[in-house]
Amino acid sequence: MALIENLPTPSLLVEHERLQHNIAVMKAKANRFGVSLRAHLKTAKSLDIAAMLCDSSHSGITVSTLQEAEYFAAGGYKDILYAVCLEPRKFERVARLYARGISLKVIVNDMVVAQQLVDWSNAQQAWDFQIQCLIEIDTDGHRTGIAPDSEDLLPMGQLLDSAQNIEFCGVMTHCGSSYNCHSLDCIKNLADLEREGCVLAAHRLREAGIKCDTVSVGSTPTMVVSENFEEVTEIRPGVFVFYDLFQYGLGVCSLNDIALSVLSAVIGHNRRTGKIFLDAGGLALSKDRGTAGQNVDYGYGLVCNLQGQVIQESLIVEDVNQEHGIVSVSDDSLFERFPIGSLVRILPNHACMTAAAYEYYEIVKQGKVIDRWSRCNGWNE
Amino acid sequence: MALIENLPTPSLLVEHERLQHNIAVMKAKANRFGVSLRAHLKTAKSLDIAAMLCDSSHSGITVSTLQEAEYFAAGGYKDILYAVCLEPRKFERVARLYARGISLKVIVNDMVVAQQLVDWSNAQQAWDFQIQCLIEIDTDGHRTGIAPDSEDLLPMGQLLDSAQNIEFCGVMTHCGSSYNCHSLDCIKNLADLEREGCVLAAHRLREAGIKCDTVSVGSTPTMVVSENFEEVTEIRPGVFVFYDLFQYGLGVCSLNDIALSVLSAVIGHNRRTGKIFLDAGGLALSKDRGTAGQNVDYGYGLVCNLQGQVIQESLIVEDVNQEHGIVSVSDDSLFERFPIGSLVRILPNHACMTAAAYEYYEIVKQGKVIDRWSRCNGWNE
Repeated sequence: MALIENLPTPSLLVEHERLQHNIAVMKAKANRFGVSLRAHLKTAKSLDIAAMLCDSSHSGITVSTLQEAEYFAAGGYKDILYAVCLEPRKFERVARLYARGISLKVIVNDMVVAQQLVDWSNAQQAWDFQIQCLIEIDTDGHRTGIAPDSEDLLPMGQLLDSAQNIEFCGVMTHCGSSYNCHSLDCIKNLADLEREGCVLAAHRLREAGIKCDTVSVGSTPTMVVSENFEEVTEIRPGVFVFYDLFQYGLGVCSLNDIALSVLSAVIGHNRRTGKIFLDAGGLALSKDRGTAGQNVDYGYGLVCNLQGQVIQESLIVEDVNQEHGIVSVSDDSLFERFPIGSLVRILPNHACMTAAAYEYYEIVKQGKVIDRWSRCNGWNE
Repeated sequence: MALIENLPTPSLLVEHERLQHNIAVMKAKANRFGVSLRAHLKTAKSLDIAAMLCDSSHSGITVSTLQEAEYFAAGGYKDILYAVCLEPRKFERVARLYARGISLKVIVNDMVVAQQLVDWSNAQQAWDFQIQCLIEIDTDGHRTGIAPDSEDLLPMGQLLDSAQNIEFCGVMTHCGSSYNCHSLDCIKNLADLEREGCVLAAHRLREAGIKCDTVSVGSTPTMVVSENFEEVTEIRPGVFVFYDLFQYGLGVCSLNDIALSVLSAVIGHNRRTGKIFLDAGGLALSKDRGTAGQNVDYGYGLVCNLQGQVIQESLIVEDVNQEHGIVSVSDDSLFERFPIGSLVRILPNHACMTAAAYEYYEIVKQGKVIDRWSRCNGWNE
């Protein structure tokens, strides 16, 4: 087994024990409240991590692109929710997954698209499957979806429920505005809104005689904080597998829960300007600046030592160029402590964005590289 | 040949005629001033585009990672400048390229590293090559390099020049602070500083009896604006092949020069909040916010129609989630004009960052897809 210090830089590291811990905690929470964990794999995009999340009794997952759906389908997953609203140009690609035996649940939130999906599915004579479809509910005004009390809800539900080649499955929502919170109380309130809005939509559908089995909610912050999952059937957190500085800033994890880091080498010193340069720049870290709006701004990432321990809370990557990370040092002794060629680990602002630059995770445990796991990237079929 | 409208979304488009034009203009400028165009391929990362930049008489290129060097080496390029300061952990990987017949020019700017490189290269008995090495000069206080008048310059030059297994080639600089300019005059002044600083360093070395053949400068803005290349031997612009909104904001290209765009589908309407949602989000566009500090802030990109024409200068991707681009519309008629399933093209803030999310360029000409070109990404050997 290789040592971390023998990896090339930049490399993307995952602390296996932290990953296991984060997954175990979320699984335990789902079990405690009797909801299915349909983890969002847009963060990890990895079959190995999917395997840790799923077991023989439950293999439902969530994805953000059709490429992810195809990747996980090739890995044996058959119950996949594509949690980005479907548009007509993607109907055929969805149908190709069904033709391979994959139940790709899709979401709609627009009457025109719902009608297009119904018309298109009705025109397919040879199908021996039904497209599984949910309605996306907007519970926080954050992004897409129809309001729980929308006048479109029942006509949309009826349209989908009565279509021959469609199976209407229920409702789903994502409370993305939890990312704007500055307190756990704020997240808690949004978690309540998320649940209540989605449950209200389900009630309205059922009262109108429309079967609505699935009530699917979730974002990592609301799922960590909420203690009320009444009438919810499944939850869809994603970034919790790794966590990141942004989630730490929200207060839903500790620094020690962050499982993802970028291994980087010191490539330059500039004592005149008080800068240390790293070989992890804008591509290796991403240009996500999520923590800029939080109480503590970590720039482009928090610099840790090779063991993953924080050196100084203020030692951050304050600027990036494509292949340069720039660290300001207030303390000249850091030039001695981190000579050119020495290694650091950088905790990312946003794990989903940072991981997307890499083909592989280097899985590490107690300073050793115990495995290399691949991930999917991009959008190609 | 496929039509653009048949591509999946998001896809990365390159307008072939614009690419040809941008390259022809820069080549003509290099020819006019008698300097070699050693284009920086960190932007394009494509053998097909390298072929447009190089010809039989000149195949020198610049890269930002050793992976790029290996990719272009595999494609037949032998004269490659790795323009990020070398650190000792990468010596062996550099030597592996030399063993394959590749002259990978490396840069150093630190006496300790220079001595390490000399010691390490001296210890190699079996080499039948010399590591080609330049000193990086800091001409604008922007990032890495030693000052033109640094007391380290001559000892470093002497050390490298006298080492048996090293060939000292000269000096190079990159005037990255041209990216902070708000006027062409500012860029012009920096271009002068860039040239003068690098030339001064070369003079000092030569006066000390150290051969200094190469005087290498360059950033796209300074190379576009400068009219003085006296004593410069080569220039290294990169993003000029595609340009982007940031370069447009600097004033060094027109909107019609921007060759790169992201094809994206409308996936949602929210008439209550006045938003149109696209399937190009933070991954497809990158989270680069370079234009935020410029006179016109284009958010995460400028929305154009399928033909690539600007719809309204204010129609921008104002926010992104991982797979959602969010466009605010002030004019309700845009919901009719861009129904769900319709296509737009988004001009990127920063071509280098946006392109890095894609495996392929879809090469387009007059609305047709004429080719697909691959690119390299990541850092793996």
